[in-house]
Amino acid sequence: MSTLVQPILLTGNEVQQLSKEVGRDTLMGKAIAKNVKDLEAFMRLPIEVPGHGEAGGYEHNRHKQNYTYMNLAGRLFLITGEERYAQLVRELLASYADSYLTFDFHVQKNTNPTGRLFHQILNEHVWLMFSSLAYSCVASTMTEDERQHVIDNLFNPMLDMFTVKYGHDFDRIHNHGIWAVAAVGICGLAVNRREFLDMSVYGLDRDGSGGFLAQISKLFAPSGYYMEGPYYHRYAIRPLCVFAEVLHRHMPELDIFNYKDGVIGRTVEAMLATAYPNGQFPALNDASRTMSINDAGVQVAVSQYAEHYGIDENLLGMAKIQDSVWMHGCGLTLSNAFESKSDVGLPFWPSVELNEGPTGDRGAQGFMRAQDKDKDVFQLVMNYGQHGMGHGNFDTLGISYFNRGKEVLREYGFGRWVNVEPKFGGRYLDENKTYARQTIAHNAVTVDETCQNYFDVERADSVHGEPHFFCADHQQMVGMSAFANAHYDGIGQQRSVFMLKHEDFEAPLLIDLFRLTSDCAHQYDYSHQFDGQIIRTNFDYQAHKELNVVSDALGYRHLWNIAQGNVSGSALVSWLQENSYYTWLGTSSNPNGQIFFTRTGANDPSFNLRSEQSFIFRTHGEDTLLASVVETHGYFNEEFEQSVNARGVAKEIRVIGHSGSASVVEIETEKTRFTLMVSNDPNVTCDSVNHAEIAGKTYSWVGFYAIEQAVLV
Amino acid sequence: MSTLVQPILLTGNEVQQLSKEVGRDTLMGKAIAKNVKDLEAFMRLPIEVPGHGEAGGYEHNRHKQNYTYMNLAGRLFLITGEERYAQLVRELLASYADSYLTFDFHVQKNTNPTGRLFHQILNEHVWLMFSSLAYSCVASTMTEDERQHVIDNLFNPMLDMFTVKYGHDFDRIHNHGIWAVAAVGICGLAVNRREFLDMSVYGLDRDGSGGFLAQISKLFAPSGYYMEGPYYHRYAIRPLCVFAEVLHRHMPELDIFNYKDGVIGRTVEAMLATAYPNGQFPALNDASRTMSINDAGVQVAVSQYAEHYGIDENLLGMAKIQDSVWMHGCGLTLSNAFESKSDVGLPFWPSVELNEGPTGDRGAQGFMRAQDKDKDVFQLVMNYGQHGMGHGNFDTLGISYFNRGKEVLREYGFGRWVNVEPKFGGRYLDENKTYARQTIAHNAVTVDETCQNYFDVERADSVHGEPHFFCADHQQMVGMSAFANAHYDGIGQQRSVFMLKHEDFEAPLLIDLFRLTSDCAHQYDYSHQFDGQIIRTNFDYQAHKELNVVSDALGYRHLWNIAQGNVSGSALVSWLQENSYYTWLGTSSNPNGQIFFTRTGANDPSFNLRSEQSFIFRTHGEDTLLASVVETHGYFNEEFEQSVNARGVAKEIRVIGHSGSASVVEIETEKTRFTLMVSNDPNVTCDSVNHAEIAGKTYSWVGFYAIEQAVLV
Repeated sequence: MSTLVQPILLTGNEVQQLSKEVGRDTLMGKAIAKNVKDLEAFMRLPIEVPGHGEAGGYEHNRHKQNYTYMNLAGRLFLITGEERYAQLVRELLASYADSYLTFDFHVQKNTNPTGRLFHQILNEHVWLMFSSLAYSCVASTMTEDERQHVIDNLFNPMLDMFTVKYGHDFDRIHNHGIWAVAAVGICGLAVNRREFLDMSVYGLDRDGSGGFLAQISKLFAPSGYYMEGPYYHRYAIRPLCVFAEVLHRHMPELDIFNYKDGVIGRTVEAMLATAYPNGQFPALNDASRTMSINDAGVQVAVSQYAEHYGIDENLLGMAKIQDSVWMHGCGLTLSNAFESKSDVGLPFWPSVELNEGPTGDRGAQGFMRAQDKDKDVFQLVMNYGQHGMGHGNFDTLGISYFNRGKEVLREYGFGRWVNVEPKFGGRYLDENKTYARQTIAHNAVTVDETCQNYFDVERADSVHGEPHFFCADHQQMVGMSAFANAHYDGIGQQRSVFMLKHEDFEAPLLIDLFRLTSDCAHQYDYSHQFDGQIIRTNFDYQAHKELNVVSDALGYRHLWNIAQGNVSGSALVSWLQENSYYTWLGTSSNPNGQIFFTRTGANDPSFNLRSEQSFIFRTHGEDTLLASVVETHGYFNEEFEQSVNARGVAKEIRVIGHSGSASVVEIETEKTRFTLMVSNDPNVTCDSVNHAEIAGKTYSWVGFYAIEQAVLV
Repeated sequence: MSTLVQPILLTGNEVQQLSKEVGRDTLMGKAIAKNVKDLEAFMRLPIEVPGHGEAGGYEHNRHKQNYTYMNLAGRLFLITGEERYAQLVRELLASYADSYLTFDFHVQKNTNPTGRLFHQILNEHVWLMFSSLAYSCVASTMTEDERQHVIDNLFNPMLDMFTVKYGHDFDRIHNHGIWAVAAVGICGLAVNRREFLDMSVYGLDRDGSGGFLAQISKLFAPSGYYMEGPYYHRYAIRPLCVFAEVLHRHMPELDIFNYKDGVIGRTVEAMLATAYPNGQFPALNDASRTMSINDAGVQVAVSQYAEHYGIDENLLGMAKIQDSVWMHGCGLTLSNAFESKSDVGLPFWPSVELNEGPTGDRGAQGFMRAQDKDKDVFQLVMNYGQHGMGHGNFDTLGISYFNRGKEVLREYGFGRWVNVEPKFGGRYLDENKTYARQTIAHNAVTVDETCQNYFDVERADSVHGEPHFFCADHQQMVGMSAFANAHYDGIGQQRSVFMLKHEDFEAPLLIDLFRLTSDCAHQYDYSHQFDGQIIRTNFDYQAHKELNVVSDALGYRHLWNIAQGNVSGSALVSWLQENSYYTWLGTSSNPNGQIFFTRTGANDPSFNLRSEQSFIFRTHGEDTLLASVVETHGYFNEEFEQSVNARGVAKEIRVIGHSGSASVVEIETEKTRFTLMVSNDPNVTCDSVNHAEIAGKTYSWVGFYAIEQAVLV
């Protein structure tokens, strides 16, 4: 027999405080109003508990809606006192209890075990977590029989399924595992079976080998970074934060928010620190390009961080982008802080290098930021960490670059149309492997038309990038550098990227030195994924009258070869993206060069790929330095027919020389010659005194790199 | 010797009223604040009067900025009393006066005569109009010598150039001509030479053969429509409205706002009635896709309309989109009206058919609108009027279709990157003729791969479309229909388009019947310009391994043939554009059919074209009825990973038959069979009793068309 359950996540006092926000023009007031509006719209539909359907199909979506709105209805019943909301939860739970055990398990189509409602138990975990929370909010309004019906025919069978039938999966350390333990632990509390809470915290055997504590200890690097990238991080963060809040209230002895030196706070910080200035997450690994801090899970995380770790300007800036908070006591704390501050600006995160691996020694992810005169944030992201497990792209040393509100050097994102049922049920498409995860699909160098690690996941998991330097406090020019010497047999790779501020340029100049070393000659394809309209080049090229793929190699077979030309000296490619012009100037230490203009879409009979552009700078050689800049300049507004500074000022780039100790490159505008000296010594420190013999001249400087300038006019 | 000039466009009382708006949160207060901000930013640059440069180049833009900010500074000096603003105007005018006569005339590159500042005198007219207005605002702060310097060395030489050197052009009836007469008339007032005002109003010979009155009498159809389309209309509307306001004040005897039964108000109404629900103008003829009612000229027109013709809900809705008003007494009237109304909604223009030609008998442009349950406006535009002079596209019976905030069946717009100097100086590109103006680039039928009127402008100017019916008051299904029987030798064309509301569909269903008649067999290419991701089809096609152009014909030579397949029965093409799904179902009366998927970019060596998609339904036959629907359905949100109703409900479309008297088509969902009967009789009226023998059966209805429905389940 069940004992009466109280709301698991809200105290009476919290409910009272939240009630006062109804109708107010605060972040919490707006969150409540929006939730009421959405819930009322859902309640205009008849109650329905369908059978199971395809991933992304009608039934799938309906089950998802059912738990989403039960979760809202439970809390909104408490906050507004509206009995119809409790009734919705009761009726839906009763209906599920009526039919749940009559549903067969789905036929398994991918690697995940199947549930009775969904094609994979992951979704069933999610269902259980939210439904259990909703139940706890309305259980006091149910009769004993009603409660027992739900417990016997729904919650207990689910607990049994997750911990017995699929028990072998329960202790796996994986982002899905957090949903599993949160669901089981919370449901255990809801049905007064605390043994399930114990299992969720300490593992099935309650020995710490599995469960929540093991997961939060092992899933994240010391920096807090999650190796599958921000897209999966934000998916795991919701049950992580919700369950942490539950443990804070129901297992206070854990002191969960201080556990492992505050690992929960640290991993939230790390996740937020990856975001672009507009709040979107870089599409590291298999990820959507549009996931952002507006995600409901990130809202929970930001609100919870405010309550348990403190509030600063950047957190308030995040709340401003989110324009909402978690409908919970934690969210109220943030909402109150926001309300008391009159002029919250947008967040400007510091540059940060997030280490990877259990002890932080398996490379890192670099997030470098600079601001232009108008305070616009330029963000450069470089991956020099681990392969992102099953979701990993083969793009070590790949970069992405964001400014003026958009990604300029772009990540393609995953080959997947999430929840679009006619597109393979919304699951990952074949093109995810044959294109999106291939090296050539990224802003990186592909050697001999072969993917890094030869598209071998095991090999990729065994290696990682090596940080070289990360220097965010240089006044004029921030920079980061890393090696990837194990990703191609017999090839050393080093990439050093900088953002230079100088009065010649209206905005920070991206400088990119990509060095490759090898005993024998190779083909190096230095690719740049961009969007927009090509405005001009400074070289002749052949626009093909008939299109063929760039080659039949993996990745390349999806690229139409639109045009190609030979280049020497400084090759220039300029394009317009939305309101800004961009000019790439590139060269290499080899006497040969070619540029290919490509567009995705070849060998894509089902139109699964988006049509996207790149240009590839190809050169052949042994040891090679590829050097380029990307200048951001001008302004175009089609509606108002304005165009200024469509040409930019960077005129030339030259490789003076490079060796194991240093690379030296010159960049010229009409007015200034810049000489960039970069140490290639893996052991360089910020105090190193460098003397490099390059092209018969000695260059000397202190630290990782230096930039000198000579006035030309 | 000059006499002291007062502000031409503002009275002392108006200035006083406008002053009171400074700092207020009204449309006028916001307009003033924005203008001050922009002007202050400009004033941080040193004063500069460059020589002449390329179209779209630095010097061009600087001259443009100079007149733009003089125009603001003159009025803002009066409104705010800030002496620095008057000083800016004085200094700039003095500087121009110092150097104007030292500049040579540009070398002529296109058909327009050149100026001393600009590559074409059009821009010099614009310069003069705004500078004269600015001068009139600050003349009272100048010394006699200062005024005389400007008059002798700048204004008088300009007046002379426009009316003597280029006098042969002054009386031309053309949209550029309005700028000419407005500039000369206003400058004449500014320098106290009223004879120039007379010339501007009545023509050089002051006999009414040229000048403003002739222009506004002849440029517009009785409906107010301007034959070059809204893009050029809004360009001409600014000097038209500004000069009308000047005449209202300085030649009150003209009673200009009642001239020719209020032609000025009527043409403003017509222009506004073309706009899509988001305020953008359909890109009829050579036009940018992004021009909207936010254009400064349209702001002047809306404010002036408010003052002289009255204010209604739709005008307030326009002001809401503009979020601004003309900084003038007229704008204050609109701002005050807006302020006094608490809940201004977005405008919903009625459906309107705008006739063309001097007497309104040269066809028309149809703008049909319907709303879905959420009040979203669906707009269908069909061109069955005249060829738009030198800017005309060859697209009679072409349609465009807008809903849910975006154009769905799309206009490509012009082949031009306005003001982008590296793109041929921002002028029209060759691809404008070889692609953008060709029939195949539009949503129309191309016969035998040949452009309408064989791309012969004279031939095109000699023919026009014929209205058939325009029925906007039908409860369930609005529709319009027209003929174009002279655009291809020996081919009759009729297009009838409808928007059907029915509970089976979540949104109005677009139904499109395109009928072609001929004595011999032809190839008909029924093309659909769309954007987004193809989701599914219901037929097999060959995705080409190697891309070639669809054909070498004009227009076609820019289209890559991506994929093609044979179709029979109802062919289905479904795509996702932003947040909405669209499903096209099409068929024809012929037993043969093919669909081609295309993308622009072939034979485009300078990357002048945007990369855009279309699908072409091709069939061969003599008399042929092409029938299709476009269903708008579902919702996709990548960020929130939501997808609903990705498939739609339209299942089948069948041509039952067609003849000179009628076409009958059936459309089916799972639940309903719709039978659409349309009269093809050019003389049909809304009262006609129709009896059509089609496929051995007699169909009877009253009026232009009828739809019957049968329940299937």
